[in-house]
Amino acid sequence: MRILGIDPGLRLTGFGVIDVQGSRLQYVSSGTIKVPTELGLEQRLRVILENIGEVIQATAPQVAAIEKVFVNANPHSTLLLGQARGAALCALALADLPVHEYTALQIKKTVTGQGHAAKEQIQLMVKHLLQLNGTPAPDAADALACAISHAQFAPVLRQLEQHAELTGARRIRGGRLIR
Amino acid sequence: MRILGIDPGLRLTGFGVIDVQGSRLQYVSSGTIKVPTELGLEQRLRVILENIGEVIQATAPQVAAIEKVFVNANPHSTLLLGQARGAALCALALADLPVHEYTALQIKKTVTGQGHAAKEQIQLMVKHLLQLNGTPAPDAADALACAISHAQFAPVLRQLEQHAELTGARRIRGGRLIR
Repeated sequence: MRILGIDPGLRLTGFGVIDVQGSRLQYVSSGTIKVPTELGLEQRLRVILENIGEVIQATAPQVAAIEKVFVNANPHSTLLLGQARGAALCALALADLPVHEYTALQIKKTVTGQGHAAKEQIQLMVKHLLQLNGTPAPDAADALACAISHAQFAPVLRQLEQHAELTGARRIRGGRLIR
Repeated sequence: MRILGIDPGLRLTGFGVIDVQGSRLQYVSSGTIKVPTELGLEQRLRVILENIGEVIQATAPQVAAIEKVFVNANPHSTLLLGQARGAALCALALADLPVHEYTALQIKKTVTGQGHAAKEQIQLMVKHLLQLNGTPAPDAADALACAISHAQFAPVLRQLEQHAELTGARRIRGGRLIR
């Protein structure tokens, strides 16, 4: 299974692609989409949409994982981040990728073992888990951490889905069964 | 000048297209994109992106106007609306349309003469200003009102731009000169 992780942002959007075979993780690609700040909002969103589209074309992932937005920041930032996230999600939808969402807490816990890890700890753990030679930039590391989180959660989700089929539950959202 | 107005929303996105010649307004098209609520978030955003793209292809507007989001609502709604707006803005950017933003207050003042008009008043004034036979649905009326607002503001913007060229100001954002 090839997973694309996305850490959306209006200025910097991180992406990271990994392969998973059983419990083995393999780094494929990662990077940061730097959005020119001098562009108008709609053109900045287009940069995100098109660049993620290019990453998908180049790496052919089967599934995507994206960080859930923490909405308690100031409302203006929430709106800007929401728009960037909307552009990123459009790119994933246009490629027909199933999308899974993870909170920052889930991601930090998965890769570092604790929910309040600093940026640097995530970078170091991602480097360690994927056996990288260099340390990925913060946004790329966050995107890779998101992909790693999905790699960990996917077997649990599959179990839930099998259970859902057996019990006739309708679908699964955010790891919960909806009957 | 043909103007596309957009009133973005994750459940209902309104659109309205008008032609402007001098002070004469001519209705072209309007409607509501109903986004199936049973879809996942990313597929709902895709519906918005692709449907606005189809409206643009069918009506060939030269410029777009979109309502500015009022961010004092609850942060969760702001995030959802931000994502819908991000998808709508992507559609406009992909078509290379210049995008202008107007606040709900500006739009209401422009079409009804007062900033605190009810939905029904906007619908009636849009019907009157565009000499329609029927009353457009609320979201379509808001989108048309947004397009009408740009029709009113565009001559002012043009004057500002000419002034900017004369005085060497760099660009115009939200009606203000940035030097």
